[in-house]
Amino acid sequence: MDKLQIVKIGGNVIENRKALKEFLADFSEIKGAKIVIHGGGKEATQMAKKLGIPLQIIEGRRITDLPNLELITMLYAGKLNKTIVAQLQAFGSNALGLSGADGNSITAKKRPPEPIDFGFVGDVTAVNEVLFTSLLAQNIVPVCCAITHDKNGQLLNTNADTIASEIAIAMSSHFEVTLSYCFEKKGVLKDEEEENSVIPILTSVAYKTLKKEKTIHSGMLPKIHNCFEALKKGVAHVRIGNPKMITEKVIHTQIQL
Amino acid sequence: MDKLQIVKIGGNVIENRKALKEFLADFSEIKGAKIVIHGGGKEATQMAKKLGIPLQIIEGRRITDLPNLELITMLYAGKLNKTIVAQLQAFGSNALGLSGADGNSITAKKRPPEPIDFGFVGDVTAVNEVLFTSLLAQNIVPVCCAITHDKNGQLLNTNADTIASEIAIAMSSHFEVTLSYCFEKKGVLKDEEEENSVIPILTSVAYKTLKKEKTIHSGMLPKIHNCFEALKKGVAHVRIGNPKMITEKVIHTQIQL
Repeated sequence: MDKLQIVKIGGNVIENRKALKEFLADFSEIKGAKIVIHGGGKEATQMAKKLGIPLQIIEGRRITDLPNLELITMLYAGKLNKTIVAQLQAFGSNALGLSGADGNSITAKKRPPEPIDFGFVGDVTAVNEVLFTSLLAQNIVPVCCAITHDKNGQLLNTNADTIASEIAIAMSSHFEVTLSYCFEKKGVLKDEEEENSVIPILTSVAYKTLKKEKTIHSGMLPKIHNCFEALKKGVAHVRIGNPKMITEKVIHTQIQL
Repeated sequence: MDKLQIVKIGGNVIENRKALKEFLADFSEIKGAKIVIHGGGKEATQMAKKLGIPLQIIEGRRITDLPNLELITMLYAGKLNKTIVAQLQAFGSNALGLSGADGNSITAKKRPPEPIDFGFVGDVTAVNEVLFTSLLAQNIVPVCCAITHDKNGQLLNTNADTIASEIAIAMSSHFEVTLSYCFEKKGVLKDEEEENSVIPILTSVAYKTLKKEKTIHSGMLPKIHNCFEALKKGVAHVRIGNPKMITEKVIHTQIQL
């Protein structure tokens, strides 16, 4: 089976122009099939303020109403996606940006309004393996943003970590997939205050304990949930860490069932 | 030779949501290979105002500085392109949005700063026929926005009419191409005040006279120039008119050498 590297970038890696460029230079060094998925970063919040678009937050989670959906479509599918694609082209990777609507690459279902109406938020229902396989066969590097569609004309905001794991799962019947979640930290930390307290191997048994003890909490929980889902459904390798782990032997967290 | 319909939409057709949807429904009815190219519309000017981005205009032409380039990347490649793609998907066309950077579909060269520095504006240098041919062979409908790249990481603002004619020219060695420029008017008018004064056939000889007499002037000149360039370089049919000409036998202007 051919190898496929799927890399999700988020946090500081996309918010900081220099960090992003460094990552893209490294990512371009990867030989063979590869896909990148990017989150949005904090710019959406800043631009919402400038445009006078109110932010609604319920139970710590942002509601995607129509003005916010339009805003993130501009930022994620427009500015950020095309910046990444143009830079990858400069580094010699034939990148091609995709929202879920493009080539029907990722379809989703609008989340039901009960118990909380999150607005135009979608949960992935299908990944178009045929399209991704065809693009990869042409040495094209798909660059996916965190926007999907419902096939009825509606774009939907979707979690980028989940998109990454869903693509990885779908592609694992064609490739030996390595799924890498990259952010500013070196991996999953035992102690948040101590950046070198990286857990090198996180098994599902250890995870249960660490979750119970609240060593791992809040934002890391859905991310790690996505990792285990991917492993259970056929993805060969899943890891969390700093983008440097893509090209160098640096400490990071390997997730294992 | 297989037929290929290349349709450029601009003006009111993209500014008015209802007109856009009607066009996309009609466009989806076209059998066989098809490509759509869209301009930007007036939203960029409105949003620049909201975001406090100053507009610079020299000799009646807009300067694309960095904040304006970012703005049109958000609007054209983000909001507008993805809205069109998602709606085409709903109408059963497997649309895929492209900036020139995506798949290296269209490369351009930044216009020299003399005599006027237009900023990040590019003139098309190459169209990636291999990519377009491959997408069309997969029944994918490319949806191109008016943004190109220089292959060195820089996105560039490029005239949508020119992008349409350049794609049409490049594809005419593989297809019998019909290039249609669609906007709110019924065609090239003999009398601007009289919407029914459509010139049904505009030859290059007649064009010279009408240009001299200033019957045809300002914005129509570069558009018609693109039409003749396309015909000279192998495009089979070129026409200007209302989007209804795509599916119905309505009056429009046929351009002929």
